[in-house]
Amino acid sequence: MNAPADPTNPLRELSQHEDDVLERIGKIVSERTIVRGERHVGDDAAVLRPFVGEAIVSTDVAVWGVHLDEQLFGIGDLGFKAVAAAVSDLAAMGARARGLVVAVVAPPGTDLEELHYGIAEAAQLTGCPVVGGDLSRGNQVSVAVTVLGECPGGGAVLRSGARAGDEFMVTGPLGASSAGLRRRRDGAPLNDELVLAHRRPWPRLREGIAARDAGASAMMDLSDGLGLDLHRLADASGVGFELTAVPVSEGANLDEAISGGEDYELVIATSNPERLRLVFHDRGLREPISLGRAVASPQRRLLGGEVFERKGFEHEL
Amino acid sequence: MNAPADPTNPLRELSQHEDDVLERIGKIVSERTIVRGERHVGDDAAVLRPFVGEAIVSTDVAVWGVHLDEQLFGIGDLGFKAVAAAVSDLAAMGARARGLVVAVVAPPGTDLEELHYGIAEAAQLTGCPVVGGDLSRGNQVSVAVTVLGECPGGGAVLRSGARAGDEFMVTGPLGASSAGLRRRRDGAPLNDELVLAHRRPWPRLREGIAARDAGASAMMDLSDGLGLDLHRLADASGVGFELTAVPVSEGANLDEAISGGEDYELVIATSNPERLRLVFHDRGLREPISLGRAVASPQRRLLGGEVFERKGFEHEL
Repeated sequence: MNAPADPTNPLRELSQHEDDVLERIGKIVSERTIVRGERHVGDDAAVLRPFVGEAIVSTDVAVWGVHLDEQLFGIGDLGFKAVAAAVSDLAAMGARARGLVVAVVAPPGTDLEELHYGIAEAAQLTGCPVVGGDLSRGNQVSVAVTVLGECPGGGAVLRSGARAGDEFMVTGPLGASSAGLRRRRDGAPLNDELVLAHRRPWPRLREGIAARDAGASAMMDLSDGLGLDLHRLADASGVGFELTAVPVSEGANLDEAISGGEDYELVIATSNPERLRLVFHDRGLREPISLGRAVASPQRRLLGGEVFERKGFEHEL
Repeated sequence: MNAPADPTNPLRELSQHEDDVLERIGKIVSERTIVRGERHVGDDAAVLRPFVGEAIVSTDVAVWGVHLDEQLFGIGDLGFKAVAAAVSDLAAMGARARGLVVAVVAPPGTDLEELHYGIAEAAQLTGCPVVGGDLSRGNQVSVAVTVLGECPGGGAVLRSGARAGDEFMVTGPLGASSAGLRRRRDGAPLNDELVLAHRRPWPRLREGIAARDAGASAMMDLSDGLGLDLHRLADASGVGFELTAVPVSEGANLDEAISGGEDYELVIATSNPERLRLVFHDRGLREPISLGRAVASPQRRLLGGEVFERKGFEHEL
């Protein structure tokens, strides 16, 4: 969808010759994401300048027809979302992005150009360059993205650090992605604002780094919905929680905000919410929104005094 | 195939509940590959101790039925080979292995236990721990492995450094993997020595590090066969070559040695072959075998005075 209209585009007629195909795809991704002093596509492996502090790594695979409906979206959306979901895992640790590699499986005839433009666009927008990849024939399109990041000075923020009394905050209102999917199913165009929230999620890298710098005690990204992910964070930390409110995106409903998933906002636990707000303010970031507090009893999980059930997007295996 | 016979094995009856499945698979891989001071499976991302020197990264995807015949081999072989192929790319740079992540796509009913035992076995044997992963439903099994390594002091060995006059050497005789595939097709058992060469390739990590320490000018691993990979190295370096001989594994023929692929021996270019031999000898490694020399004319590509054609395993795309 972001391919240049140039009719001489090298991928218009994909050669079946492996080295040629890899070289052409390499051009799409590397033209958009170049890092001086590093060697990326073209050797057995990429060579990256030394990492500063802890190295952070995560992998995510997106399958065409499973993670995204091929009747409603373009294959470039699959590429974009696969990258955004993986980069969001770096954000959730408070890491800086350093690069990503992508392994694509695709049947013959797949629009590899469109797919890789989606990948390259997300890599460029998030500042996480594509440094390598692999490509294989298969009978269904899948995109496995592995992201690399670094935490200068250490202190990656884990899920397990929340303590009773911490405030839970979230980097934005929830439900827009799920609402966008609903609207697309109802016929909304691809450039509808909520549909765009579903097609073009935005990993909260700057917010994650700000939260780490502000001494957040625990953090994770909301990929499967607050109704599932907050339970996971509470489980890992051995705490319960009492939520006062869940912020709902304009155009979304409460159910979408709680269990829709794919918003990729960050949920942050902190013993010093004022400091978090101050750091976000200083860096020009949207003010984080309070959800409520962590409590000592791991069994106690409430929203507005009612039981907050574990529900969200559970992937079928 | 290397699963304990224990009938209480937690994966005997796979729950369909995502978190449970991931936790059980996490146990298989993490029990075999633990690194103190690091946090692997269980958070948004893995946190690794700081890398020393350049960071090396490569990704490889293996598809069941494309990269390995599901009629002839077990799904654990697919997992093992996917890891070995990726780790071999670290060897090809002269890197130390630091860890890997694995993204698996599989249809319902797949023996995920067997697959992950193969993955874990290769990770353990190569000293490259599984630090994270992802799992999705799909209609064909694929395994995308991303490996991370480091080159203390820098100096990862690229494909592009060979110069006229350099000697080309290889870390072992070639063709065993391809001969093993042929023997398996002819009915040989899975524990046949050549069939094992195909099922259980051995990445040459120690040899790659030794070659880097000995000042090798270029290096790559032989994944698609000398008849393709040596041309790639020569292309990248802008040189030609005159080979005197190709070492053939016992039980293999010359065609298998040249174009069979998947031997994962390293081909090394060096201006100082005596130093290379000495370093290998000092470290108890098998003596590298001379193939011939690099020459200035990129068009000149000979074996025993005859044209050495470009042929090997070209993946269909």
